[in-house]
Parts: sequence; structure tokens; C-alpha cells
Amino acid sequence: MKQAPRIVLLAHGSSDQRWCDTFEQLAKPTLEAVPGARIAYMELAQPSLQQVIAEGVAAGAESFTVVPLFLAAGRHLRRDVPEMIAALEEEYAVRVSLAPAIGENPLLAEAIKDVVTLQLQTTEASVG
Amino acid sequence: MKQAPRIVLLAHGSSDQRWCDTFEQLAKPTLEAVPGARIAYMELAQPSLQQVIAEGVAAGAESFTVVPLFLAAGRHLRRDVPEMIAALEEEYAVRVSLAPAIGENPLLAEAIKDVVTLQLQTTEASVG
Repeated sequence: MKQAPRIVLLAHGSSDQRWCDTFEQLAKPTLEAVPGARIAYMELAQPSLQQVIAEGVAAGAESFTVVPLFLAAGRHLRRDVPEMIAALEEEYAVRVSLAPAIGENPLLAEAIKDVVTLQLQTTEASVG
Repeated sequence: MKQAPRIVLLAHGSSDQRWCDTFEQLAKPTLEAVPGARIAYMELAQPSLQQVIAEGVAAGAESFTVVPLFLAAGRHLRRDVPEMIAALEEEYAVRVSLAPAIGENPLLAEAIKDVVTLQLQTTEASVG
């Protein structure tokens, strides 16, 4: 049986530590649930995608699945990230597949509805 | 009893229709569940936040809650959107409050974990 690919949650990154803190919190349940999963940043923060791939390769991983922590696919996911991935596949001789933006999954739409309806209840309770 | 605020889901916007389509899908369960809720775009797409506030005011709304469909708060949510909101409050004489970025709610982190673990199961089934 082949090794399952390592999961890499890819966030945009920012020089603002508060931005990264939010993504660390967003990633936390996944990192706790999935052995070997890591978070990486596309730019402006550490660890980079390259660092995480290099560490995985050093630990014996042969393939990776990059899951973008983006609500939708724009220029970054349609062009920049595939280019980064192609370069990393060549440099490290591994297979790296790119999953759809996390926001394209209907579970995210349901979670947004839950957040808004819970928030509404709180607002109505304080208003009423 | 005071009117509950109208919910406005605020997305970034893009000239790429596929970007907006993803946000329409992300917003759909909320728009179906919450009477009067609307989606609006910060820039580069329609309807704008101003259009949605103007329509709400015309329909008798006195207050709005803007829920950012952003995973984390960067410059847009820390500076640009509060400035837009302040200007709209003055122009339309309404109260507009800004909720935290949707990604700051732990329900989103749980949904991301669910997406990744479901995806892993699919991958392992096809690999094993």
C-alpha cells in the first residue's frame, strides 16, 4: 500500500502577526487530527511551502496534498501556487497535488450560516 | 422591541466571475436562512456595500451588521472597511456594525478539519 500524501494547509501569509495567529487557529483542529499535517505560508511569513516540503521529504514523505486556506481561487491559486508547486516537484522529486480552495467545499458555506445565525441570536437577545 | 440589524455578508470582490460565483455559493445557505440578508462586495464586483445599504434603508432598515467573508483580518478589515462603514453611517443616518472576520470563529476551523479529513478518506480509499 502506498503512503498517504502529507497534508499541507497553505495560507496567504502576512507580515502582520495577528493575521498569522488567526490562520494558526484555523489550522489547529486539522493539525491535531491529521498526523504529519502542517501549515505553510505562500509569502510574507514562515514556514514557507518550500520549508514544509523539504522537512516532509527529509522525514520520508513521497507525496503531498496542498489544501489552500483561501475562500476562493484568485490569481494566487490559479497561477502563482501551481507554479510554486511545479518548481518544488522538480526540486524535490516528489508529487505535490493542489486541492480546491477550502471555501469551495459546501461545509464552509454551512459553517458560515451557523456563525451568522448564532451571532444573530446573540444580537437579538441583547436587543430584545 | 427594536428591529434586528440586517445582515450583510461582505466579500472582497474580483473582476473574475468565478471568484464571485464561489462567494455566492458560500453565502447561499446564510441568505436562505436569514430574512433580509444580502451579499455585498468591497470592490471590483456588484452589488457594492453602498448599494446594499441604500436598498436596505429604502426598505426601512435602521441598522446593519456587516459580516466579513474573510478568513482573517488584514488591512482591508482593519482600515478600509471601517472607513467605508463610517462614511455610509453618515450618508444614510443608520447604524452599521462590523462583525469579526468569519474565519475568527472556531466553527470555521472545525469545518476546515472536516473538509480535510473527508478528503483524506477519499484519497486513502483510492490509494489503498
